[in-house]
Amino acid sequence: MENFEFNNPVKIFFGKGQIIQLQNQIASSQRIMLTYGGGSIFRNGVYDKVKSALAEYTLVEFGGIEPNPTHETCMKAVDLIRSEGIDFILAVGGGSVIDASKYIAAAVFQEDPWQILTGAAEIRQALPLGTVLTLPATGTEMNANSVISRKDTDEKLAFSSPEVMPRFSILDPESAASLPQKQVANGIVDSFVHVIEQYLTYPAGAPLQDRMAEAILTTLIEEGPKVYANPADYDAMANLMWCSTMALNGLISRGVHEDWVIHQIGHELTAFHGIDHARTLAIVLPGVWNVFRTEKKEKLLQYGRRVLNIESQAEDQAIDQIIAKTIAFFEGLGISTRLSAYGVPADTIQKIVDRFNSRGWLAIGDRGMTTPEKVREILTTRL
Amino acid sequence: MENFEFNNPVKIFFGKGQIIQLQNQIASSQRIMLTYGGGSIFRNGVYDKVKSALAEYTLVEFGGIEPNPTHETCMKAVDLIRSEGIDFILAVGGGSVIDASKYIAAAVFQEDPWQILTGAAEIRQALPLGTVLTLPATGTEMNANSVISRKDTDEKLAFSSPEVMPRFSILDPESAASLPQKQVANGIVDSFVHVIEQYLTYPAGAPLQDRMAEAILTTLIEEGPKVYANPADYDAMANLMWCSTMALNGLISRGVHEDWVIHQIGHELTAFHGIDHARTLAIVLPGVWNVFRTEKKEKLLQYGRRVLNIESQAEDQAIDQIIAKTIAFFEGLGISTRLSAYGVPADTIQKIVDRFNSRGWLAIGDRGMTTPEKVREILTTRL
Repeated sequence: MENFEFNNPVKIFFGKGQIIQLQNQIASSQRIMLTYGGGSIFRNGVYDKVKSALAEYTLVEFGGIEPNPTHETCMKAVDLIRSEGIDFILAVGGGSVIDASKYIAAAVFQEDPWQILTGAAEIRQALPLGTVLTLPATGTEMNANSVISRKDTDEKLAFSSPEVMPRFSILDPESAASLPQKQVANGIVDSFVHVIEQYLTYPAGAPLQDRMAEAILTTLIEEGPKVYANPADYDAMANLMWCSTMALNGLISRGVHEDWVIHQIGHELTAFHGIDHARTLAIVLPGVWNVFRTEKKEKLLQYGRRVLNIESQAEDQAIDQIIAKTIAFFEGLGISTRLSAYGVPADTIQKIVDRFNSRGWLAIGDRGMTTPEKVREILTTRL
Repeated sequence: MENFEFNNPVKIFFGKGQIIQLQNQIASSQRIMLTYGGGSIFRNGVYDKVKSALAEYTLVEFGGIEPNPTHETCMKAVDLIRSEGIDFILAVGGGSVIDASKYIAAAVFQEDPWQILTGAAEIRQALPLGTVLTLPATGTEMNANSVISRKDTDEKLAFSSPEVMPRFSILDPESAASLPQKQVANGIVDSFVHVIEQYLTYPAGAPLQDRMAEAILTTLIEEGPKVYANPADYDAMANLMWCSTMALNGLISRGVHEDWVIHQIGHELTAFHGIDHARTLAIVLPGVWNVFRTEKKEKLLQYGRRVLNIESQAEDQAIDQIIAKTIAFFEGLGISTRLSAYGVPADTIQKIVDRFNSRGWLAIGDRGMTTPEKVREILTTRL
């Protein structure tokens, strides 16, 4: 096992009726900016619950945060925070709203906030942030990470800082009960691939971390189809919600090797073609496993055996079956796994290869195996 | 799944050489009381590493904390804290030293500290506490719990408060490399039964929590014999250490039903006969499973199937095999599971039953099934 540090102070309130806890978690003197997205919180009752819990507070609203939230939108919120003297940000929504709110919370203290994303700025301070989660998917409600896009340059970059970890997150599965099936499916696949990025590399002598990752994968495969079929199934949604939080709160990656190449390639597909984040992951994952089937063999076969019940047989044949069964899991959730299904032309591959080269991403991810030429190979298998 | 809250801000530094982190985690102005036990830290090199990391600090030492730490000993430390103007407690040792230090940290602010254990006092404040763990077992390094004994009344009671959670815990498997086999065995069984108390009740519709509990159990069964055979096996000790921390940091019990009857009965065996805590658990567990084999059937069979690979057969026969295999795991670690092996006479059973009655513990644990008469039945099967 590798040395590690672990510290996750995010306070979780999980279950029915927990939104009322807001009034115990924010000092009544605080001026709150309520951030949200396209307005689903008005239709699913979450907005009313939040307003009722915070009836005694000063609330300033900032809505309209888009999927794949942009720097441009976030800068408008920063202006509002400055003009309104906001002390606390309450993000009510899914990963996009929360990621945007993390960026906003840190950007308030920066002269050139985009440098947070390029890594040139150091985050020493951020406004305190709490969240009410309405879409289980990204795990951002219990971690330090955020992904932000920039329209004028077609870029999508990530940052991480303990300063932007939520003070608390409220996870009420009822808040997600009226989600469209498509978003539920995205959430399942997003959570699943988060686990894969931290698990499917090579053995690190860390059997507990392996088994905890497999616990999440198995539960997603078991509960995913139930909650996809009926997002109002409370228990199934609760299980998905807790899986997606546990998938990326730092726990399963302690002391083991990570990858994140599926995400790095996927982000470019979103940047160039606006494909939903989770769907880009479902496209790229089978390509990565195909291309690195030898290097990732031990973990692939372990995943096959323990999660998919694929018994021992010729290794290559087992791996083919493992990839096919994982694709079938994605497709069973209505998620296509081929570039052609999204109308992505072959010449996008060259653009992505060029971008990896221009960023100097010449040997990234698991054991530095992913070169720009491997990116070409991975995407070519997914046409 | 039941509603839950989760908040565990303890910062973990895990791995080789991490003791040096002490100097980054305690402000240099702090006057530190270094608490420890019988002196093993002088022989295993941990004391020297701590002293070297804190060469620039004022350290006041308080050693001699005994296994099953007593109120009487802790009160001496409280006097020392007051006379020396201590700001920070650094516990270097196993569960006893850390539990004692938690009690000391809170007792400093109480007029009648024993009321912390009886539940009559409220803990509003405690001295900050950090730990350097030398014995993986109790999980106290990452939770709010403490168990303290009182000599003059033969009592052993527990308390819990977020105020006494360590600010940080340093888990270096090398600090445990020279442990006697007996203590390693105790640690394995203690961790194992912690998981059982939070897992082996009845289904709660929480498959992720179940699988995470099973992940710890499986890893303990797999790695336990390796580390028992050779405590200096770094990877095996690292895995035991992380299992024992994860077994009782609050995570696996979120949203599910707990029991803790094995502990409550076991504590009395320690109080009356001074038997090592873990050994009392190994004695009591098979009795609880035997007596509640019908009520706990679903979880017993799930544990048998997923952890012990006991395939489907007649239920009663499967449960007999599950109990036998679990006993064999304990005995394989040199831990006897019968009262007679420890010279406990039959009349101790009546004393324990009387004590449960006098405390008003008339229907405790999993579904309130454990009455004083069930305690008699459980212990009678273990003579």
